[in-house]
Amino acid sequence: MTIENLIKSQHSEAMEQLFLLLRIPSVSTSTQHNADCRNAAEWLRDHFRKIGCPTVDLLASETHPVVWAEGPKVPGKPTVLVYGHYDVQPPDPVELWNTPPFEPTIVDGDIVARGATDDKGQVFSIIKAFEATMVDGKPPVNVRFLIEGQEESGGEVLTELLEREPHRVEADAVLVADMPFFGVGWPAVYTALRGMCYCELSVRTLGRDLHSGLYGGVAPNAHEALVHILSQLKSPNGRIRIPGLYEAVERPTKAERDAWSKLPFNQRTYLKNELGAKAMTGLHRYSAFERTWALPTFEIHGITGGYMEEGAKTVIPAEATAKVSLRLVPKQRYRSVERQLRKAVKDLAPSYAKVSLKFIHGADPVQTDVTASPVRLISRAFEEVVGRAAVPIRSGGSIPIVPTLGKRKAPVVLAGVGLPDDRLHAPNEKLSVKQFWIGVRVFGRFFEMLGNGA
Amino acid sequence: MTIENLIKSQHSEAMEQLFLLLRIPSVSTSTQHNADCRNAAEWLRDHFRKIGCPTVDLLASETHPVVWAEGPKVPGKPTVLVYGHYDVQPPDPVELWNTPPFEPTIVDGDIVARGATDDKGQVFSIIKAFEATMVDGKPPVNVRFLIEGQEESGGEVLTELLEREPHRVEADAVLVADMPFFGVGWPAVYTALRGMCYCELSVRTLGRDLHSGLYGGVAPNAHEALVHILSQLKSPNGRIRIPGLYEAVERPTKAERDAWSKLPFNQRTYLKNELGAKAMTGLHRYSAFERTWALPTFEIHGITGGYMEEGAKTVIPAEATAKVSLRLVPKQRYRSVERQLRKAVKDLAPSYAKVSLKFIHGADPVQTDVTASPVRLISRAFEEVVGRAAVPIRSGGSIPIVPTLGKRKAPVVLAGVGLPDDRLHAPNEKLSVKQFWIGVRVFGRFFEMLGNGA
Repeated sequence: MTIENLIKSQHSEAMEQLFLLLRIPSVSTSTQHNADCRNAAEWLRDHFRKIGCPTVDLLASETHPVVWAEGPKVPGKPTVLVYGHYDVQPPDPVELWNTPPFEPTIVDGDIVARGATDDKGQVFSIIKAFEATMVDGKPPVNVRFLIEGQEESGGEVLTELLEREPHRVEADAVLVADMPFFGVGWPAVYTALRGMCYCELSVRTLGRDLHSGLYGGVAPNAHEALVHILSQLKSPNGRIRIPGLYEAVERPTKAERDAWSKLPFNQRTYLKNELGAKAMTGLHRYSAFERTWALPTFEIHGITGGYMEEGAKTVIPAEATAKVSLRLVPKQRYRSVERQLRKAVKDLAPSYAKVSLKFIHGADPVQTDVTASPVRLISRAFEEVVGRAAVPIRSGGSIPIVPTLGKRKAPVVLAGVGLPDDRLHAPNEKLSVKQFWIGVRVFGRFFEMLGNGA
Repeated sequence: MTIENLIKSQHSEAMEQLFLLLRIPSVSTSTQHNADCRNAAEWLRDHFRKIGCPTVDLLASETHPVVWAEGPKVPGKPTVLVYGHYDVQPPDPVELWNTPPFEPTIVDGDIVARGATDDKGQVFSIIKAFEATMVDGKPPVNVRFLIEGQEESGGEVLTELLEREPHRVEADAVLVADMPFFGVGWPAVYTALRGMCYCELSVRTLGRDLHSGLYGGVAPNAHEALVHILSQLKSPNGRIRIPGLYEAVERPTKAERDAWSKLPFNQRTYLKNELGAKAMTGLHRYSAFERTWALPTFEIHGITGGYMEEGAKTVIPAEATAKVSLRLVPKQRYRSVERQLRKAVKDLAPSYAKVSLKFIHGADPVQTDVTASPVRLISRAFEEVVGRAAVPIRSGGSIPIVPTLGKRKAPVVLAGVGLPDDRLHAPNEKLSVKQFWIGVRVFGRFFEMLGNGA
C-alpha cells in the first residue's frame, strides 16, 4: 500500500483505532489504573499482530509491560528502533476539561483527549506510517517498536529491561516522536536534550526548633544558613557559581546559532504570554534559545522546614531543605555535576551548619550529530510533506531514557508532529488531525528513504 | 491574717483551690473550649467575691471575658494593677504527658498540669498573697486584678477593652508575674522585654509556575529572588542590614552588664543542652545575654511556594513567601521598623521581581526603670524570702499587652516565681510547690512594703 492510498482508504478507520486506544485511561502514576495500563499494552500487542508483525511480546511487567514488536524482516535493510509510550498523565484537574479526557472528541480539527499528543497519537502515526509503507507484507526497513508504559512515572521497568537485554537497542537509527514542531509550519528535529541533576540540599543548625524570644540572637537559624548557601550558588547576573561546572559546556556551532537566529521570536510576546514576567533572567549575552537549550541551569524548586502553616509562629528552624536541580548540556555528566555541587555546597556552608546533599535523580544530556544520515532524511521528509525542512533545534527538557536508546551509537532522531500549544500534562490536551496525517506521511517517507539507502 | 498564718492554715485548701482552677481546660485557641474558658473566668469571679472583693466583673466577652476585681478600697494607699491570664495552651501532644494535663498531680514536689506555671499557678499565688495580707478585711494597698482569657490566642478582647476604657490601667505599679526566675535560687526582675515585628515577605516573578525544561535559563525564579533578598538582610557575622535599624538601639547600662556578667553561664553546656548547636551566631563581641536580651534579631521562620511535597518536581516557582520577624529592643518601635524593613526589601529586590511585605503583628518593646520604687521593693521582698535580691535581667521574648499596661507611666514589675525548666507550652508543664509558696510570701511582702510606703 502506498502512503496516500492508506490515507485515502483508512481515514476514518485509523481515527477509530486511535480513539479506542485513547479511551483506555492508562495513567501509570496511579495503581488504580494498573489494569488500564495492561489493557493499553494488550491493545497495542493485538494491533501489531493484526498488521503482520511476526514477533510481538509484552515484556518485564504484568501491570506496565513494555510492548515489543518487530516488523517482518527485510534482510540487507537498515533497522529503525521506534520508541514511544502508551501511558498518560493523570487528567486532573478533570473539571477544567471541556470534553471528557478519555472520550476523544474532534474539536475544531483537533483530537482532544488525554494522551492525544503525549504520546499515543504520535506513536500511532508512526504505526500507521509503518502499515502504509508495507508492500506485499514487506516494510522498506526493519522496524522494532519499543513502547513503554511508565514514561510518566519513572520508567524503571524499561530501564531494568534494557540493562538485562541491551541488544534490544541495536539499530541503525532510533526514532523518538515525543517532540513538537517549533511552531505551526515549522517542523523541527531536535539535536540535543538537556540532562538533569536533581538533589535535596539540607542544612541542620540546632537540636530542635527553638523559640526566637528565648534564643534569638545566638541560635543559628537553618534557613539563614540555607539562604546564604543558595544565594552564593548563582550570581545576580545568572552565572552559576559551582566551580568547574562550565568546563564541559560547549557553545552550539555557528550553523546552529545561525539557524536559531532565523526562528520567529518576539521577546515582548514571549515575556507577556509565555512567562508572565517583567524581564528574562540568565546570561544576557546569549539568546533566549541558547539560554534555554544550550546552557546549564540551576533552579530552586521549593524550600521546606520551620513554620509553613497559616499565621505566625516565632520559631528558629533547626533544619531547612531546598529542592534544587541543574539542567545539563552535552558533554556534562550528571554524576560529575553532582560531585561539583556537593563540593561547592560544602565549601559555602557556614561553620555552624551541618550540610547534606541527597541525590534524587539524574539524566545525562543527549546530542545527535546534525549531519547523521537519519537526521538529514527526516528533515528531507518534512520538506517533501510540509514544504519546509525540519529546523535543527534543541530541547531544554530531558528524556532520561534517550541516552540508553542511543548507547549503541545509532543516531537518535528526535522529531514529532505535535504543536507547542498541545497542552501536554494539562487539561484539554490535543493533537491536530492534520498534524497526525503529516506524521503518517513524514514517518512513512522516512522509512522509505532509509530503505532506499537515500 | 499574716502571710505565715495563711500558709499554715490554708496549705491544703489553697492547693485544692488551685487544682480546681487547673482542672478547667480553658484552652483559648480552640472554640471547642469556649465554655471552659467561661468557666475558668466564673471560677475566678466567684473566688474574688468569696475573699471579699467589693467589685468583681466579667467584661467584654461572653466566651473569653476579662476578669476584673477590685480589692477593698484603702484610701491614701497606692494602687497595684495585677495582670495575668486564665487561658492556657493546648495540651498537644497529649501522648507525651506522664499524667493527664488537666488532672493536676504532685510529682516530686511539682504541680504538674497545663497552666501550672503559665499562668494560673502564678496568678493564684498573687491572689493568695492578697488574701494573706488583709487585716480586718483591709489589704495594705489598693489592688486591681485584670485577668484575661486570650493571652495564648491574640488578646483582642483585652486590647479592645483597654482602648475603650483606658482608666482601667491607672495605677502606681503594675505587677506581671508571667516570668520565671533566672534559675533555681536566682530570683529575677525583668527590666525589659523585646518587641516584635512579624511580616510575610512575598516575591512574584512569573504569571504561573513554569517547567524548568522549557523555560529554565530565562524565566525568573521567585525563590532565587527571595533568597537573594533574604541573604542580603543579614551579614554572615550577624549584623542586620536594614538601614537605620540600629539607630534607636542603646546598649544596656554598665550596671546591667556588670550584673549579667555575674550570672552563672556555661557556654559549652548551653550549646550542647539548650541549643544542640556547634556554635552560637550573632554579634560576637557582645555576650550571649546581650545578644538575646538587648539586641534586635532578624529571623526567617519558614519559606513557602513552589514544590514542597515528597519527591521531585522541576517547577520554576512563580511566587515565594518567607515568614520573617524582628525582635526589637527598647527605643525601637515596631511601626518604624516595619517601614525600615519595607524600604530595605524594596531596595534589594531584583528588577524582575514584584515584592510585597505583609505586616502580620507587632509589639513595642518594654523598659522599666531599674531604680523605680516598686522594682526595688520586689527585689527586697525576694531578698527577704529567698535570701537573694532579684537580679535585674531582661527577657528576649515579647508580651504585647505590657506596653498598654504601662501607658499611664506606672512602673511595670515583671517578676514571677516559675523556673526556666517549667516546660511552658510543652508536655508535663509544672510549677514547683515550693516556688508557689515563695510567690505567696514575696508578693505578700511586696504589697505590704508598698502599703508602708517603704
